Amino acid sequence: MLTVKGKCVFAGIAIGPMALFHRSTISTAAHTIENVEAEAVRFHSARKKAISQLQDLYDKALTRVGKEQAAVFEIHQMMLDDPDYIEAVEDTIRANSINAEAAVDQASKKFADMLSTMEDTYMQARAIDVKDISRRILEVLSGGIGVDFTKYNHVIIAADDLAPSETLQLDPDKILGFVTSEGSTNSHTAILARTLGIAAVVNTGTALHTDVDGKTAIVDGYTGLVYIDPDEATLTKMQQKQAESLAYKKQLEDMRGKESMTQDGYKVELFANVGNPNNIPQVIMNDGEGIGLFRSEFLYLEHNDYPTEEEQFEAYKKALEGMKGKKVVIRTLDIGADKKADYFPLAQEENPALGLRAIRICLTRPELFKTQLRALCRASVFGKLSVMFPMIISSDEIDRSKDILQEVRNQLDKEGIAYDPNMEVGIMIETPAAAIISDELAKEVDFFSIGTNDLTQYTLAIDRQHTGLDKFFNPHHPAVLRLIKQTIENGHKAGIWVGICGELGADLELTEYFLRAGIDELSVSPPAILPLRKKIRSLNLSQK
Amino acid sequence: MLTVKGKCVFAGIAIGPMALFHRSTISTAAHTIENVEAEAVRFHSARKKAISQLQDLYDKALTRVGKEQAAVFEIHQMMLDDPDYIEAVEDTIRANSINAEAAVDQASKKFADMLSTMEDTYMQARAIDVKDISRRILEVLSGGIGVDFTKYNHVIIAADDLAPSETLQLDPDKILGFVTSEGSTNSHTAILARTLGIAAVVNTGTALHTDVDGKTAIVDGYTGLVYIDPDEATLTKMQQKQAESLAYKKQLEDMRGKESMTQDGYKVELFANVGNPNNIPQVIMNDGEGIGLFRSEFLYLEHNDYPTEEEQFEAYKKALEGMKGKKVVIRTLDIGADKKADYFPLAQEENPALGLRAIRICLTRPELFKTQLRALCRASVFGKLSVMFPMIISSDEIDRSKDILQEVRNQLDKEGIAYDPNMEVGIMIETPAAAIISDELAKEVDFFSIGTNDLTQYTLAIDRQHTGLDKFFNPHHPAVLRLIKQTIENGHKAGIWVGICGELGADLELTEYFLRAGIDELSVSPPAILPLRKKIRSLNLSQK
Repeated sequence: MLTVKGKCVFAGIAIGPMALFHRSTISTAAHTIENVEAEAVRFHSARKKAISQLQDLYDKALTRVGKEQAAVFEIHQMMLDDPDYIEAVEDTIRANSINAEAAVDQASKKFADMLSTMEDTYMQARAIDVKDISRRILEVLSGGIGVDFTKYNHVIIAADDLAPSETLQLDPDKILGFVTSEGSTNSHTAILARTLGIAAVVNTGTALHTDVDGKTAIVDGYTGLVYIDPDEATLTKMQQKQAESLAYKKQLEDMRGKESMTQDGYKVELFANVGNPNNIPQVIMNDGEGIGLFRSEFLYLEHNDYPTEEEQFEAYKKALEGMKGKKVVIRTLDIGADKKADYFPLAQEENPALGLRAIRICLTRPELFKTQLRALCRASVFGKLSVMFPMIISSDEIDRSKDILQEVRNQLDKEGIAYDPNMEVGIMIETPAAAIISDELAKEVDFFSIGTNDLTQYTLAIDRQHTGLDKFFNPHHPAVLRLIKQTIENGHKAGIWVGICGELGADLELTEYFLRAGIDELSVSPPAILPLRKKIRSLNLSQK
Repeated sequence: MLTVKGKCVFAGIAIGPMALFHRSTISTAAHTIENVEAEAVRFHSARKKAISQLQDLYDKALTRVGKEQAAVFEIHQMMLDDPDYIEAVEDTIRANSINAEAAVDQASKKFADMLSTMEDTYMQARAIDVKDISRRILEVLSGGIGVDFTKYNHVIIAADDLAPSETLQLDPDKILGFVTSEGSTNSHTAILARTLGIAAVVNTGTALHTDVDGKTAIVDGYTGLVYIDPDEATLTKMQQKQAESLAYKKQLEDMRGKESMTQDGYKVELFANVGNPNNIPQVIMNDGEGIGLFRSEFLYLEHNDYPTEEEQFEAYKKALEGMKGKKVVIRTLDIGADKKADYFPLAQEENPALGLRAIRICLTRPELFKTQLRALCRASVFGKLSVMFPMIISSDEIDRSKDILQEVRNQLDKEGIAYDPNMEVGIMIETPAAAIISDELAKEVDFFSIGTNDLTQYTLAIDRQHTGLDKFFNPHHPAVLRLIKQTIENGHKAGIWVGICGELGADLELTEYFLRAGIDELSVSPPAILPLRKKIRSLNLSQK
């Protein structure tokens, strides 16, 4: 039995034969070509055939995994039409009188190297796409069929890493699990595994060779362990774990469509945290009753320049329409601290977590804030939108933010542009200051959402990303729990609703505490919704 | 009228004729010497005469400003006996057959350059001393009398900067004020100005030339402004300000020896914060009733290696003896965040203020902690010592700290070494967590001291050293005031005393709030003691 350990991507157990992912080897050795113009034509025909292959793949992926995931094939089509790339290959053929295979290989390496040294992480990640499209042309040129995807049927795939297009060509119904020696938990493969609910472990650091092909393997997506050729005891144990896992998943499935209500009738709104409108299908799939935290940062962090009002409007509208009238709480820009974008100037700070971030940036740069608020107001007519300000510590900040919102509304009135005048305005309670004076702040807003991650870090004075302070860090510290309770009480005294949108909200050990404290809403990551509903439905608050 | 602005060193007003500090020019040009051995002897005679001059200066300074300030002359004597320095000068005379003046000048430059490039800031500062002793030898060699200090009588001194020995040779009774174009507020001159209460402004950036000599000047140590040849209106205004300043100082003088008690009989202990046992005379001078915060960091930050138990013991004993039986609260090591020492390994952190610091370091490195606690226990028999742990967030940390203290006491028992078994053990309340669960923590300790600087920074999630967040920072934020009140109440419920040792303690706008909340002790910087006593004595809490 061989055991390797990697990073968990999706918590599930897969047991079945292992299949090594196999790519054909294509020679890219250079040799002299007499007729360079004919060779250039040969390159163009292959390029066009690759584009047409990608169209087929796009159409198939569209029905199977949806537009968002399929988009990679559209992007690859565009890349194959990129004049710089085409010119690089043509020039190499002509200048060196060499074959198209060698020219494509050289251009591929040149562009991939250039991209991978760029500072922007998004551009860096594009290196793999350049290699992927070049490989596709090479396959067409060689007349080969490339990877025979049909042969992967009811197996656990083992690979070094998978290109986005490769991942999408695998039929998820026929794949039991994934193991990759490289790759990260944020890779395309990993995201797809999560979307499809396939047990997967990545970055094991151990390359698997042909000798594992066909052997029985077990992927434990809970622990990150992969067993190859397991012994009898391990197999029995893991089969049992798989059965329990499936039974638990069945129980969670039963939670779908049920109310998030205790046995004695206490109802909680069970919402989802999302970082992108593309996550909406996952919210629907996990039966989220609304969005309790829509992080608007992706608009800034995934762009190379400030997002326009129009781009923002489209994203907010998409989220609202996706949620079909259910509540969507959108948090205004929370950039700064560990979240930075290249084009967005932020000074170096001694303690970024205690620095210029979130609402402090918005109030320092009101023109930026106005653009976002305008986009939000305009989107508000497409569903039930609530706006939420982060990192508030004083009434004064709320006043200033609401003044700017009013300015935006006045301007929209002048321009005759519609917005929802009843849009809820709330704040994050994520600083000790805000929790402590929540009685005062409650008079000024329509709701509170407690951000437990930051609240805990400031209350305990421990950076939550500091790995060396674990023995001092207590996520259930009584001071944090007291601040949460006090915030709920103060909110209710002022007649407003109070939710939690930090990690603690999904902590099943605290669910009863929060419900007894009177929490109105819990907003958690989509996969945490059904387990939390199960927990809520198991509680009976009338019993001590 | 010429106006220049520098950094305030001591808040006072000086009005009088300006005198440019004038050093004689000594030629250090090299010329060939026939008898190099005779020249070496000439150097040694001058060196010995300089040492004897320094002894006179030391004796005078001892009676005038005390041992601590006079020590610079002892250090200079030792430097003149340094074999490396002597060898460098002798070698230069012999190797180049040049005059002693040139050789001393060259050696001086060599050593000063070497020192000023060293990483250690203490060693860097020694460069000025090397220049100072070399200059003294040159003056003896030239047969000159150097600076004629007797001519500075009832004047405001203007200089580029002053060497420590120069500062000490000025008769403070005859000096109205200082202005220097260079220098920092931590320089020897600045410290002396504060000790002696002389109005001083440093680092004006503007060199003053002989044309200011004898002109009327005004030094405003409150604003950092210096007026030369002032117009009538300015002179009248500043004379009035000086009169008010003197009247206020007179009122403060009247506070000496009085009780820190409100008109209706509420008594507060008025203690001092100090960073070094050398500050004790300043505490006595300002009539401090005890030490509420003795920062033990100087033992670590001003050394090139971990201080030994013996070094620590001597420092604590000195503080206790200096305070003659009055209470001295010594805080255990609060290193980390912005306080670092070269020899003390601390990892780079994303947010040092939320990182490994203070008690977290001590509990991670118990051998370090034990050395300090042993030194404290041993010193405890020399006065009334209380020990205080910083950055506490949980009962568990108190338990662990007290366990280590108990281990130390057991070991001392075994060794038959005396300590005060009734030494108070308290904690800083400087994290929101500690303030919020102060009811629980109060059961475990003998006192609380509220560290308002850190408490404010964590509560508001604003780095207190961040200059760009002033418009979000409210030092009187109601959340902080509530936490202080709550901590006092919780402390009293458990029957322990509660003090404040952060900057807010000296904020006269809040004195009444703190007294009404029931504060037992206020610990402030020595110069803030008498103004605070004046404020306390003006209050009547029985009146609404």
